[in-house]
Amino acid sequence: MKAVVHAEIPGLEGLTYGEIEERQPGEGEVSIRLKTAGLNHRDLFVLHRHKPTDPPLIIGSDGAGIVEAVGTGVEGVQVGDEVIINPGLGWQKNSDAPPAGFEIVGLPDHGTFAEKIVVPAENTAPKPAYLTWEEAGVLSLAALTAYRALFTRGKVESGMKVLIPGIGSGVATFLLQFAKAAGATVYVTSRSKEKGEKALEFGADKAIDSNEDWKEALGGEKMDLVIECVGAATFNKALEQLRPGGTIVTFGASAGDDVQINLRTFFYGQFNFLGSTMGSAEEYSDMLKFIETHQIKPVMDEVYPLSEFGEAFKRIEEAAQLGKIGFSIS
Amino acid sequence: MKAVVHAEIPGLEGLTYGEIEERQPGEGEVSIRLKTAGLNHRDLFVLHRHKPTDPPLIIGSDGAGIVEAVGTGVEGVQVGDEVIINPGLGWQKNSDAPPAGFEIVGLPDHGTFAEKIVVPAENTAPKPAYLTWEEAGVLSLAALTAYRALFTRGKVESGMKVLIPGIGSGVATFLLQFAKAAGATVYVTSRSKEKGEKALEFGADKAIDSNEDWKEALGGEKMDLVIECVGAATFNKALEQLRPGGTIVTFGASAGDDVQINLRTFFYGQFNFLGSTMGSAEEYSDMLKFIETHQIKPVMDEVYPLSEFGEAFKRIEEAAQLGKIGFSIS
Repeated sequence: MKAVVHAEIPGLEGLTYGEIEERQPGEGEVSIRLKTAGLNHRDLFVLHRHKPTDPPLIIGSDGAGIVEAVGTGVEGVQVGDEVIINPGLGWQKNSDAPPAGFEIVGLPDHGTFAEKIVVPAENTAPKPAYLTWEEAGVLSLAALTAYRALFTRGKVESGMKVLIPGIGSGVATFLLQFAKAAGATVYVTSRSKEKGEKALEFGADKAIDSNEDWKEALGGEKMDLVIECVGAATFNKALEQLRPGGTIVTFGASAGDDVQINLRTFFYGQFNFLGSTMGSAEEYSDMLKFIETHQIKPVMDEVYPLSEFGEAFKRIEEAAQLGKIGFSIS
Repeated sequence: MKAVVHAEIPGLEGLTYGEIEERQPGEGEVSIRLKTAGLNHRDLFVLHRHKPTDPPLIIGSDGAGIVEAVGTGVEGVQVGDEVIINPGLGWQKNSDAPPAGFEIVGLPDHGTFAEKIVVPAENTAPKPAYLTWEEAGVLSLAALTAYRALFTRGKVESGMKVLIPGIGSGVATFLLQFAKAAGATVYVTSRSKEKGEKALEFGADKAIDSNEDWKEALGGEKMDLVIECVGAATFNKALEQLRPGGTIVTFGASAGDDVQINLRTFFYGQFNFLGSTMGSAEEYSDMLKFIETHQIKPVMDEVYPLSEFGEAFKRIEEAAQLGKIGFSIS
């Protein structure tokens, strides 16, 4: 089958589109003929984490398709089912942190940028009927990450003021949509005027130019909750906008890893600073119910044929996108 | 009346023991003849926060004594009652953060290092009968701070592993006693071998030399909860001992204000970093019930006559104490 495979050279240069052997589903597994897949920041990181000495790897964590074969002992999933993939392997019930052995589809196991994938049957869910194949293919990783950060960790409630720095990424657009559906007032920031304007169309109550004085731009409004996934470039600016007793959740650091925090300011502010990552199967199921209830569709940026993966990676590397970048496969 | 008064010169040099005019209790207030008082780190900070241009100020937040006069409209407190003082003014019900206007006895209002004090009647509680006057006089601020940090914020539970860096201070010794009473396994650190040994006598399960490799000294045990009140000198060492999904609560920074945190390590660890300060009247009341139930007495360091305040300040400045430093007044 055709796939986007990483081998030997760290980074994008090690990536090719070509033939690779497929495998049959084992016990408890299903094989899915993928119709669409979705690109995530994680796919960029994987190109550096996957060792040159390891066997070639199909990358990609998000995908949707039709079940083509089922292994032994599989119940509740049948050939012909239209499914989406939960990319979290080995994290069932919600908990403080993922259990030992937790992995994400696309490293170390083969991922979704391929004509077919074999995954545990428990990692499939029926494709939401109101979503197109393109929308279903880009949903899982970003929407699950946003759901855990906003609900499980941030405990968002109706009436809260929520700030989302850096509104470009797929996960940030889900955060915006989820927070609005939960009844929050949502403030976003972006370096791009165009993205700020688009965010207003998607429901943001206010969009701030990242280069402005945030406090002034917010008119002195203090935030109950900040969901921060940009990193050092925005972290402290965001922290300064919290009300006493407010919460900042973080799950991304593409723009810088290290932040300096003043302990005295922090404890007098009675702040809560919480780390988050993707999420459990339980949260994935809750997220699917939530988006169906509120008929939330991913904000789509661009969809490329899988063979044009290079263009897609270029776009996410330059942070040029607003929303999700997808691939059409079959 | 006699009192320890700060005026004109910032710091210890501005402090004198001498005569100052007393006042009568107004509506809702009581006047207390103080028998004992307690010294806190806050008293050191106050010497720099109290402006040279402001009127002379009696410092001190902790005290216990006998009600001598009651103002109009006071119910439930009578002349002759033996009471301790809750130093938190204007924070009744527990909440995320203190309400606007929250102050602590001893700045801007006159404090407890005096023969008498006038406070709102609602800021008094019956002196726990099992405590001596010396123990009652040093209890409030540190025990309330420890209670909020450990229970309200840290949500300590039986069976948890709790790390308390820097076991010398009064609040740290309360943390140790409270955490043990709650059924936790408690690890402490100190630069002083003697303090470490004393902490074991007071119930600590393990005492670590601060200069050791903490991970090695803990034998690889990861902590559910760290209560950190030292500051930058220990913060990152402590953070590194948390289990995935663990919590670090901070309310002190006498050994450095600024810490650097790696966001990626933080969010992959699903950590919780929570700021805390003293506490509400509701928590004060819960704390009094808790210590009575478990018959917890403050760890007493030294008690000085109030006129020898200089010796006491020297001891706390040098962090020479283990437990609470008190004053005898009358």
